[in-house]
Amino acid sequence: MKNAIFFLLEDYADWQGAYLSTRLNMSKKWTIKTVSLKSTTCKSIGGFTTVIDYSLEEVPQNIDLFVLIGGDSWGMEDNDELNKLITFYLKKGIIVGAICGAVDFLARNGHLNDYNHTGNSLDLLKQYKHYHNERNFFKEQSVADRNLITANGFASIEFSENILKALKFKSPEKIEKEHELLKKGLYG
Amino acid sequence: MKNAIFFLLEDYADWQGAYLSTRLNMSKKWTIKTVSLKSTTCKSIGGFTTVIDYSLEEVPQNIDLFVLIGGDSWGMEDNDELNKLITFYLKKGIIVGAICGAVDFLARNGHLNDYNHTGNSLDLLKQYKHYHNERNFFKEQSVADRNLITANGFASIEFSENILKALKFKSPEKIEKEHELLKKGLYG
Repeated sequence: MKNAIFFLLEDYADWQGAYLSTRLNMSKKWTIKTVSLKSTTCKSIGGFTTVIDYSLEEVPQNIDLFVLIGGDSWGMEDNDELNKLITFYLKKGIIVGAICGAVDFLARNGHLNDYNHTGNSLDLLKQYKHYHNERNFFKEQSVADRNLITANGFASIEFSENILKALKFKSPEKIEKEHELLKKGLYG
Repeated sequence: MKNAIFFLLEDYADWQGAYLSTRLNMSKKWTIKTVSLKSTTCKSIGGFTTVIDYSLEEVPQNIDLFVLIGGDSWGMEDNDELNKLITFYLKKGIIVGAICGAVDFLARNGHLNDYNHTGNSLDLLKQYKHYHNERNFFKEQSVADRNLITANGFASIEFSENILKALKFKSPEKIEKEHELLKKGLYG
């Protein structure tokens, strides 16, 4: 069984992980778990209360995907434990996804300096003293570079697509076709 | 304070209410609550466990929006209490939204016979003995007719747009502009 961990904070963005989590969890080969700093629930921006499966201390090291979902709380104080976990997963070659405010957190903590990436705003990233990779910021909906996938907050479908491709979840053509349906709908 | 109630079942579709709930809940004038048949939590298709705020018995009558989210459990036995509630809200003129499998439930229980509507599949709706409104099925992403808004399961942005317009949440132009961003993203 493969496992994906979604990291959420209070006021996480409901729509940003929805396409990815559903694609994965519809497969019998995958399980989805949520993790947060400490809290046992997180309320989404949309007002849904989500049960958190793991605290940071409990999250397993042997996973297949770690996804950091954006939201309104990434301006939090930097967190050593979360930073260590991200560094561990990135070095181990585990696929890591970050979208929206979570990309800002990665930039602020020096995780983006060795990766091509995108995000909500280069102007914001440039303000962080540990961010030194302006030349590898791309104005694209989502950027995949080896095991790190980044996206802006309004690119949840492209984010899902890049992560599923990195995981070799299905053939690239099948993934693209399914995501085309998610974008256009039945009568779009 | 205005209030929106989202009706969820086990295996509800994460992405279908996400755009709408976030738009509403980012306004200080709105509160969002969840309701289900009985359970205290519902697990989404994406594997997120959502805390349910109300059972059907507890849900208030004086609300501003009732939204039925699609998912994999709408093939359930018909439920008198839910049917009564839907009839009550529709007759009272409260805005009701239904997407994906929830539209099938409305058709099966005769709620669509007086409304223009859409859904996942007319062929499916035509099989229900209480559905007699084939001529008012439209192959559109989402259809709004007075206080009922319907949509197919891959039209969550259009569904949100039509509901916000019905609620006069903002000017139609502002709603369209925001949803255009949700569709195209920052670099789409």
